[in-house]
Amino acid sequence: MSEPNDVTPCDAAEISTWDDTADVVVVGFGAAGSAAAFTAVQAGVQVLVTERTGGPGGAAALAEGIVYLGGGTPIQEACGFPDSLDDMYRYMMAACGPDPDEVKIARYCAESLGHFDWLVDRGVPFDPTFCADTSMAPTGTEGLVYSGGEDAYPFNEIARPAPRGHLAKTKRSTGWLLMQHLAAAASGAGAAVSLDTRVDRLVVDDGRVVGVQGQRFGETVSLRARRGVVLTAGGFIFNDDMLRQHCPPLVRGTFKVGTEGDDGRGIRMAQAIGASVRNMYAGEVSLPITPPRTLIHGILVNGQGQRFINEDTYMGRVGQSSLYGQDGEVYLVVDEASYEVNWMGLAATWVCETPAQLESEMGLPAGSLEATIDLYNRHAATGEDPLFHKGPAWVRPLVPPIGAIDLRIGPAPYAPFTLGGLETTVEGEVLNLTGEAIPGLFAAGRTTSGVCAFGYASGLSIGDSTMFGRFAGASAAAG
Amino acid sequence: MSEPNDVTPCDAAEISTWDDTADVVVVGFGAAGSAAAFTAVQAGVQVLVTERTGGPGGAAALAEGIVYLGGGTPIQEACGFPDSLDDMYRYMMAACGPDPDEVKIARYCAESLGHFDWLVDRGVPFDPTFCADTSMAPTGTEGLVYSGGEDAYPFNEIARPAPRGHLAKTKRSTGWLLMQHLAAAASGAGAAVSLDTRVDRLVVDDGRVVGVQGQRFGETVSLRARRGVVLTAGGFIFNDDMLRQHCPPLVRGTFKVGTEGDDGRGIRMAQAIGASVRNMYAGEVSLPITPPRTLIHGILVNGQGQRFINEDTYMGRVGQSSLYGQDGEVYLVVDEASYEVNWMGLAATWVCETPAQLESEMGLPAGSLEATIDLYNRHAATGEDPLFHKGPAWVRPLVPPIGAIDLRIGPAPYAPFTLGGLETTVEGEVLNLTGEAIPGLFAAGRTTSGVCAFGYASGLSIGDSTMFGRFAGASAAAG
Repeated sequence: MSEPNDVTPCDAAEISTWDDTADVVVVGFGAAGSAAAFTAVQAGVQVLVTERTGGPGGAAALAEGIVYLGGGTPIQEACGFPDSLDDMYRYMMAACGPDPDEVKIARYCAESLGHFDWLVDRGVPFDPTFCADTSMAPTGTEGLVYSGGEDAYPFNEIARPAPRGHLAKTKRSTGWLLMQHLAAAASGAGAAVSLDTRVDRLVVDDGRVVGVQGQRFGETVSLRARRGVVLTAGGFIFNDDMLRQHCPPLVRGTFKVGTEGDDGRGIRMAQAIGASVRNMYAGEVSLPITPPRTLIHGILVNGQGQRFINEDTYMGRVGQSSLYGQDGEVYLVVDEASYEVNWMGLAATWVCETPAQLESEMGLPAGSLEATIDLYNRHAATGEDPLFHKGPAWVRPLVPPIGAIDLRIGPAPYAPFTLGGLETTVEGEVLNLTGEAIPGLFAAGRTTSGVCAFGYASGLSIGDSTMFGRFAGASAAAG
Repeated sequence: MSEPNDVTPCDAAEISTWDDTADVVVVGFGAAGSAAAFTAVQAGVQVLVTERTGGPGGAAALAEGIVYLGGGTPIQEACGFPDSLDDMYRYMMAACGPDPDEVKIARYCAESLGHFDWLVDRGVPFDPTFCADTSMAPTGTEGLVYSGGEDAYPFNEIARPAPRGHLAKTKRSTGWLLMQHLAAAASGAGAAVSLDTRVDRLVVDDGRVVGVQGQRFGETVSLRARRGVVLTAGGFIFNDDMLRQHCPPLVRGTFKVGTEGDDGRGIRMAQAIGASVRNMYAGEVSLPITPPRTLIHGILVNGQGQRFINEDTYMGRVGQSSLYGQDGEVYLVVDEASYEVNWMGLAATWVCETPAQLESEMGLPAGSLEATIDLYNRHAATGEDPLFHKGPAWVRPLVPPIGAIDLRIGPAPYAPFTLGGLETTVEGEVLNLTGEAIPGLFAAGRTTSGVCAFGYASGLSIGDSTMFGRFAGASAAAG
């Protein structure tokens, strides 16, 4: 038995007997894997899904389960939000950058309405109701939210805003419900599933991937794939060595989003045969401040008492900016009229009669927060925020007494996951260092770099996992 | 003939005749390559150096040529700067982070004094004189400068400051002089050199690297390496596709530091056989503000009129922070008493009677720069800077009339090069995705990730290129 960390590829000539054979082997039974498996079966081939845990679901089943879709879905229309594919495309090109994969985004938008139907056809229920109070999963069963700061600067000047975060109809755990349907669809269609099977390496025959090798209940198993292997094995947020190697800021995340299976093995086993990666530095970081939205009347400041972002944008952007840009030294300053304990129980650590007292108690440099509040209030008096362009609805002068919620790492949860991974075509082919497709190897989901280069909106991960999972499954079935 | 971009490895079985054979083949005749070649020859083996241009030198010959060394070199001692290896180590662990390679830094420090002697033995002349006016190459022949902000916050509180930037004795072009000596040393010792030879791929025999294949005057050549191949082929600052893939901010650099050979081919050809990379997001960015140092009395502000760094730190840190953190929207605000046109001719674009007028002319939000200057002056009156800890020597109130030098991308040059690359041991072995040394493959210099994870000091690149180049050459010679 090889070392747990070993991803060295295996030569097909070394395998005397295959323990199992299918046309397509899908590695990982999460969002991307279930979509790939279903689609491959529909294409008429024999599919084997391997899953290292005891059941399907992956990270998506633990997630809020938002799916980012637009261009005028039935849910958007029922809720009275007109949208166009062009607006969705312009938003995504701006929000997913810098330098996002233009081809993937174009395809993602073009297929958006069809993908909504595909999810509905798999039995996923969406409620045609809108929740205005959150950019995350609502406490009710509403099916639509703003999930990417579309209605805030700068995106509201780039594309007509529309909410595109779609949620399966259930009170919380919409990710779990989504995965119930998608996994059942794959199994129901006829995909075989091998649970408790951890794939460790690819099997290669003269440059072509012809199977995988791994561990099942302590035994080494070799699984042959006549047409193709699809890697849908998650990202690498649970591999601290890889984080240090590629994106040190994420090591400091306190609530990692994913499963322990997100150890990057899928990425590494493909790299080991010369696959290319991209955007390995990128990570989404949720810093859950709202609900309630009234807190957005406050201002976010860093360790120098300076503002650094428009507070009304997507909380995932706030989290990225706070962790990557401010080293996680961040506070929300709010006055009495706008203060509530937030949904996670984050409450004001300091409350004072004046900004000068507050900055002193917080240990900020003398005069720093006072100067920030003076400047903010000066413009807020006319409803403006020329520094960061927070929307007029959220801009009003801060009136003492004021307090601050401690949003530093530790007092507040920083919830990251990785966005970088294998370089793939829109059809799910994995590219090598020369930019050519590696024969027999396909991938989707967080094992790949998807529509997001660095920027993110809630729902884009499950969105591109399921959509490009479908395409990768179809490509593998075609061989 | 293959595509120029093709780095697909070649199987040794496909090669009928080798055009040339040596014990060690060194790819690239720059700083790392010349050190590797010299050391391998000294170890008693036959060495062939390939160089894609018409002569030796690489990026180092175009660079300022600073070599970062400390712990009490003869130059430091002659100039009256006591230093210890422990201080050097603590400085580097703080300045090269986050998460720098502790093993490499420890070895780099331990070998620092020996490496100084090695350079002197190769004929490199160092003048035992200190230049206080710059953190770059002096206009005179001084041999020592502060090159990494050692005497500024936060490093002056972490380790006893000492200047460690050593320069070969010549008026400018110290990099050229350094490379003259190092290339002559390698050739003089007996290394064969094949110029105009661009190596495209590695030749592999059952998992072991046994040679390289490339182009020489339009002909494909296969070069056999009995003991090892050493990749010293530079970084990837001249490959925009790789920059977009791994570190989008650097695409916007306006004065790329290196040669056109820094196209990442050395990194990619190793990745194509399963080599691991790290810190591909990292880049050094020089933003040459000083000399004259009097400009440091000014304040650097961003597009919101806010300060973001202590102005007395290393200009490379300022450049990194400006490009990666502020999107290159940066200005230096300075008063009459401290103003001079800088060494590159950068002059004030705006000069006004009051901060309010200045911010208006610069197009900054009303009141923003005024608030920043008020707060700065309030503390500067007592020689303090509690926000960013600029040293007392550079802190004094800004007195109108004041002006601003436009340091945005375009008006000011942003000069980047890449720091990420192959993952190697201190002995120069290239590691695969499982963390094992790839037999027959070694690397050094900017083809690798060296002592710097992200942070940088001038002289660390030529420093680790030449030192770890030596070790890689010795390892390859040992086979």
